[in-house]
Parts: sequence; structure tokens; C-alpha cells
Amino acid sequence: MSEEYTPPDGYRGPLQKRLTKEGLRTWSMIRVIKKDGSHYEGVLLPRSMHTSDDYISIKVDTGYNIGIMLPDDAEITEIGYKAGDYKIPEKIVERNPDLPDVTLLGTGGTVASRLDYRTGAVLPAFEPSELFSAVPELIEICNLTPKTLYKILSENFCAEYWIKTAEAIAKEIEEGADGIIIGHGTDTMSYSGSALSYFLRDLPVPVVIVGSQRSSDRPSSDGPINIMNASTLAAHGDLAEVVVVMHGTTSDNYDFIHRATRVRKMHSARRDTFRTVGDIPLGKIKNRDIEFFRDDLRRRGGPPEDFHLDTKIDERVTMLYFYPGMEADTMHAIIDKGYHGIIIIGTGLGHVGKPMYEALDRAKEEEIPVVIVVQPLFGYSQLRVYETGRDMLARGVIEGKNMLPEAALPKLMWALGHTKDVDEVAKIMQTNIAGEITTRETYSGFPILQGGVKNFYETYTSVDKIE
Amino acid sequence: MSEEYTPPDGYRGPLQKRLTKEGLRTWSMIRVIKKDGSHYEGVLLPRSMHTSDDYISIKVDTGYNIGIMLPDDAEITEIGYKAGDYKIPEKIVERNPDLPDVTLLGTGGTVASRLDYRTGAVLPAFEPSELFSAVPELIEICNLTPKTLYKILSENFCAEYWIKTAEAIAKEIEEGADGIIIGHGTDTMSYSGSALSYFLRDLPVPVVIVGSQRSSDRPSSDGPINIMNASTLAAHGDLAEVVVVMHGTTSDNYDFIHRATRVRKMHSARRDTFRTVGDIPLGKIKNRDIEFFRDDLRRRGGPPEDFHLDTKIDERVTMLYFYPGMEADTMHAIIDKGYHGIIIIGTGLGHVGKPMYEALDRAKEEEIPVVIVVQPLFGYSQLRVYETGRDMLARGVIEGKNMLPEAALPKLMWALGHTKDVDEVAKIMQTNIAGEITTRETYSGFPILQGGVKNFYETYTSVDKIE
Repeated sequence: MSEEYTPPDGYRGPLQKRLTKEGLRTWSMIRVIKKDGSHYEGVLLPRSMHTSDDYISIKVDTGYNIGIMLPDDAEITEIGYKAGDYKIPEKIVERNPDLPDVTLLGTGGTVASRLDYRTGAVLPAFEPSELFSAVPELIEICNLTPKTLYKILSENFCAEYWIKTAEAIAKEIEEGADGIIIGHGTDTMSYSGSALSYFLRDLPVPVVIVGSQRSSDRPSSDGPINIMNASTLAAHGDLAEVVVVMHGTTSDNYDFIHRATRVRKMHSARRDTFRTVGDIPLGKIKNRDIEFFRDDLRRRGGPPEDFHLDTKIDERVTMLYFYPGMEADTMHAIIDKGYHGIIIIGTGLGHVGKPMYEALDRAKEEEIPVVIVVQPLFGYSQLRVYETGRDMLARGVIEGKNMLPEAALPKLMWALGHTKDVDEVAKIMQTNIAGEITTRETYSGFPILQGGVKNFYETYTSVDKIE
Repeated sequence: MSEEYTPPDGYRGPLQKRLTKEGLRTWSMIRVIKKDGSHYEGVLLPRSMHTSDDYISIKVDTGYNIGIMLPDDAEITEIGYKAGDYKIPEKIVERNPDLPDVTLLGTGGTVASRLDYRTGAVLPAFEPSELFSAVPELIEICNLTPKTLYKILSENFCAEYWIKTAEAIAKEIEEGADGIIIGHGTDTMSYSGSALSYFLRDLPVPVVIVGSQRSSDRPSSDGPINIMNASTLAAHGDLAEVVVVMHGTTSDNYDFIHRATRVRKMHSARRDTFRTVGDIPLGKIKNRDIEFFRDDLRRRGGPPEDFHLDTKIDERVTMLYFYPGMEADTMHAIIDKGYHGIIIIGTGLGHVGKPMYEALDRAKEEEIPVVIVVQPLFGYSQLRVYETGRDMLARGVIEGKNMLPEAALPKLMWALGHTKDVDEVAKIMQTNIAGEITTRETYSGFPILQGGVKNFYETYTSVDKIE
């Protein structure tokens, strides 16, 4: 136990008393042994506001922070201590008139986690300016102005924030930014990216969404490279769309540029989790070198007077995942709750079972548009092929073509913000607004066995560590 | 107009009068021109029972059957006629005592579509014996006894049919079958395959689920090769699990053997739509040659007395797809409707937003197990990494590890059929029963850009035709 004792930050109630009694401080290296035999070792972290009152947070060897419930009969011992005296390593840099001006809008998420280098702890709070210090190369790429919009976790990034973010982007563009970067948690990046794609009409500059799958203190963090590539694109890329820039492989060799409406988080943990679905990405960025793979991009420098915001939405839209045996009751309940539009993720070409028909009939009668997208994720909703599809069409459902669920949900909110007429909504939903519908899909990008069949055993042993 | 006129099969009401008035028969080649300028040509098909009353079915050049709504002001003309005199080409074959006995249980779906060779029409009705005639090679592989269990479309293949199918399989095994094939529509194959994997305990022989993505009349049909490969595995494979056998590539070169609990339909239309997710398949079959890629298989020939059925389930389970902004109201409605278990498909590592917490609290209080699986499909649900996850764990949710939604849904029904105790349910859900949970995932099988970045343009032009 140290001589200058301070109780651990942020803990409350009985847990705080317990930790104080044991003389444990923030940054203590502790060992916890529970009655069930499980044991843990790690650095005791300051408690963040949202942790439950009976959990402690420790940083374990793998670099992750974990929460441990601490029952009264668990043993807890300090086995080491290394004081943390974290302060924001803010760097003040003069504006370089030869470089483009880029605004980084921080919203929260892993890209924003900050590191106490002395203790190895990741602190949840964040000032974007820290990134600038963490990635000094940025000075050569652009004049980066970091601003914190809010600090929310990705899963709470709902329609209200889509609009606020779009407004903040519009303000920066009007004030002369040459490019925008949005720091965003990775979980729901595709939903927000799609919404921004519909909201920001006739963009004159790139809007680059970036995040990280590993917090910045981990040797494997993808944050610094992603932010460097995002800055390169935002400052110098001849592109004026909403895109996602994230690792292309599990190595640090390049990032892909994904159109926001065609990208999806396809792995819960991997660094190359983002995949353009049913198409190839727009390009890649490696060592500050941008390579576009295609020429159907909206280019930078459209007339600034064309640029406008269109954030009229109706948030009362929900999404249903069909499964065999699904009854109509859930959909009835949704209609009862007053939802104005429903996305159904149907099986195969977009089918639902017969028991759902009566709810479809009711939605038709009550003029609630129902848009069908496909559970396989790759490929199109086509309801003219089988009887079931034709039965569904007769009930007024709208084929969502090859829109991803993440792109379809904000689009239906946006369509309903403009009209309540079901035919008009159908027309908007089936019109390509921002790349969310393509007329064909590529073979490339479909999951295959890498290296072919002969290479199975090799790939089997080169498995990524699951954390 | 033909001299021996018969009105077109199965049409009713005003539509029948209309077709009769125009002198159109089943198998007439017709042209339809609508006032909106759209026009169609194809063979008029007999109407199946479930088509809506104002639609006609025609078979178009691409081989697909499509439904066309026929308004009063549309022009409809016969432009040709080729009589169809379809009869079942049943082949009677003597049992060969040197070959294994395999039962093919037909349930409906595309594999079961039958062809009128003279007209090119696909008739929805089906007798499994026809397959035997269509794929004569089967005679050399096994003694195949085809039986029709029922004729349902895949999207209606719910828990009731899972149980009936399991019972039918058990009966065949008890009567001495050396292998079982289930003909199944592809849409929901993974759901049924997972259910059967939990129901059929200590299988002594292979249970092979097979289907087709293209009806048997199309030059590109995968049905015959899939059924041949499925028969090879059912008759000769040293394996005793529930598996799915479907095309490995878009060519006819080989089929993959997928463990039913780890496979997913990943494309709405492609022939190689089935992909083992997060792992490599069990093996492949090419020209009747079975190659296993791994040795962790359950092998054929377990003691027959160990084999037993365990179909105790509670069907009142539903599935929710989380999205940012999702309110608790839908989940409250589900609890109000009396569901006993909920699968939530969460973002990233399995997260839901804060507005959902109150519904999670209620589910905990009412002892309704909530199991979390991941929206990215690849990777694990891990709720100890971020605050949100820990908040969710504190509310009693159960990490679904790396179970696919298709495997998790029937498993939760099965777990609740055995116990209503939430802790017991959690224990069952987190225990690997039939390969649905693995301790690690392979790199192989994750979507990548085929041929690497250099090959983009090439793969972009070799795009599969979207039908």
C-alpha cells in the first residue's frame, strides 16, 4: 500500500469502500480470485460513469479492458503499482497556408480512446486534439482542426445525431473546409454513413468516416493508420462523397475507400471488418498514396452553391428480421405502436412465410410502406420469381433491390420525411440516391476460401486471434 | 387458335374468362403488351393454387417463371403453341444388394421442381421418383428410395416441420437406411439444418440436406449435380452429422460439405450461395469423390442404440435485429405477446443502444432469456470489452458466442423445451451441441477481393448475371 493514498477514481458505494479498505488505487496492478476458481490480473482502471456499481474495470495483458463483478467473497490483492499521471499531450501547430484545411469531427467510439502511456490504460474520455499529437505525420498532410461534436458510443448514434452531424458538416463546408473527417465508432458506421449520404446533397468535398477496431494503446491499433489515410483522402482525394476509410487487410498495409451506402461491418473484431458488399471498393490508400479502382465517383469541386442539406426524415421506421415460423403478431404490434414504415429482412430473394401475410395486408390497408431487403446480404430482392414473392407483391410490399439493411433503414426514414404517399415512397426507395442500389453486383468480394481448396490447412492455422 | 381447345389449367374467375375468350391455352407462347409500354413474351404456364387471381404465370426466355398482372386494357396475343403432354418419367429400378440404401425425403423447394421437356415449363408439383429418372447416374451410387414428406416452400418450413422431418429421418434410420437425403428449399435450409442437428442425437449415418438454386429445366441448374453429390455422401461418406451439400463455386466443378450449424445462405441467387461462416467446410465432393478437409467429424457407424431423437422445444422464441435508434417498444410488445425467449442480433460485438435497457431489465425480471448474436455474422459476441456490453451483461443477457442467427434461434427453442431456468438455458446456449459454437474462427472464408487488388477490373467484368 502506497503512502500517499488516493481512493480509486469514480467508484461508488460499497465497492468504493471495499477498494479503499484494501488500499487499492487507480493504476494498482491487482489480482482477483473468485470462489468459483476464476482469477484475473490487470491494472485497476478509473471507473467510467456508465459502469455498473458492482463491477471493477481492469486492463488485462491482451490490452483489452474488462469488467469484473466483484462478489464479497472474492479475494482482491495489489501485486504492483505504477502511478499514472496522464495529461493531454496537446500540440499547437501553426496553420500551413500551402496545405488543405480539414476538420475532424469527433463523435466518440474506439478511434477516440486515449492512452496513458505510463500505465497502458485506455481512458474513455477524449479530445480530438490528442490524435494530432499521437499521429505527428498529420502535420505534413493538412491543417487539421479537431472538434468534439459529442462523445457517444456508436450503438447510441441514432437519427438525432445523424442530423446534428450533417449540420455540423455543412457548417464546416460553408466555412471553407477542403474535406471533413468524422471519427465514429465502428458498430453503426454504415447506418450513419448511409444517412449522411442521403442528407448531404451535391457535396463539393470528401466526407470521410473513420474509426478503429483496436484502442490506440494496443500495439495492433489500426487507429493511427486509419486517421492518416482518412486525412490524406479528405485533404487531397479527388472525390466528393461520403465514404468509410478502414483497414483493407489485417496488416497495416493499406486502407480501403468504401462508399458509405455499400459497406458493412462483417466481423465483430477484425481490423479489416469493413467490406464493400456486392461490389468493389472505390479505391485504396497506402502510404499517403490514393488509388481509385473505378471512375464512377462523384468528383471534388462541385459548385458550392449546389451543395445543400436535406435532413427531412420520419424516425418512426423499424426493421424486422424474418425467420421460419415468424408469426404476424410482432408486425401487428409494430403497427399498433404507430410505426410509419417497416424494413423486412426476408430470406432468399426476400421472402416471408404465409403467417405474415395478414400483417402485410394490414400494412397495405393502413398505407404503411414495407420494404424488403435480403437476409443473404449479397444479391437482390426479386419477388417475381416464386409464388411467395408474387403473393407479397400483391400485398403491396416494395422490393428493396440490393440495398443493405443499414442503407435501407435511414433511406426509408428519409423517404417518409418527404412524402407519406406509398407509391411515392416506393419510387424513392427504388431509385438510386447515393450508390445504395447498383444495377449489378461483382463476383469480387463474395466470401470464398482464400488460396483455394489446397490452401485450407494453411489458412486454418493462420487464424486471427479472437479477442 | 387450336382446333381442340382446352382452357388454361387452374385459372379462375374473370381471368379465366379472359384467357378463354382469347383462345389461350396452357403452353401457348404469348405476348403481353401493357398500356404503360411494358411487354412480355413467354409460355403460358398452368396456374398454381397459390397465385393471385389477377396474375398469369409465364416462363420467359431466361428460364424463370414470372407472374404478370393482367389489367383489362393489356393486349394479349398467342404467338405460338407447342403442346405439353407431361407425364412422370418414373423409372423402376431393382434394388442392388451391393449398394447402400439411401432414403431421399422430399419436402418441396427448387430442388423438387420438375420439368416438362417438351415445353420447357417447370411444374411446381413434384414426385421424388422423378429425380431418379432425371439423374440416371444415381443407379450406380446407391439404392435410392424417394419419399415425399410434404410439399412446402422453404419460407414456411417452421418448427412443426423440423420435428416431423426429424421423426421421419429417425424412422428411416431405424428401418436400416445407410444415409438420408433431405430435399429442401434453399432459403431456410440453415434454420432447419440447425434444428435437425440438435434433434438427432448420436447419429449413426449421414443426414444430407440438398437443394438447388436453379430449377431443373435451366441449362445452369445445379440440382442434378447437387443430388448426385448428396447421394454419394449419404451412401458412402464416413460421416454421421447433419450437413448441407451445395455448389462450391458458380461452376459445376465441386460441391462443399457444410456443417449445418455453421452454414448460411450468403447470396440471394448464386449457385455457390452457401458458405461456411468463420470456418472451413468439412470437405468437398467432386465426381463422386469425397475429400474431407478436417478430422473433427463425427464418423459413421456409431452404436445404433445410442441414436435417439430429442425434439422437445418451446416454439415461443423470436428474433430482433437491433439498429441505432431502436426503441424498447418493440421488445416490450414481444414480451407482452408472451414470447419465452429472444435472440437479439446486436451490432459489433453484440451491442444494443441504451433505450433498449429498460426492456432488457424487464426480460430479466420476467425470466425471459435474451441471447445476443452478432450482426457482422463473422466473429464472436463479447460483452466484456466495452461498457455497453457490461451494462447488458448486468441486465442478464447471454453471450451467444459465435452462433449464427440461424443456429441460435432453433437452439433457444430447444433449450427452452428442456428447462425454463434462465441459468440452465444460458448454460445450454453457451455449450457447443452440434458444431454451432467454435473456439476460434479461421481467416479463410472471410470476404476478400478475389485475385487481390490487381485483379479488380477483371473480376468486375466477370460478374455473375443477376437474374
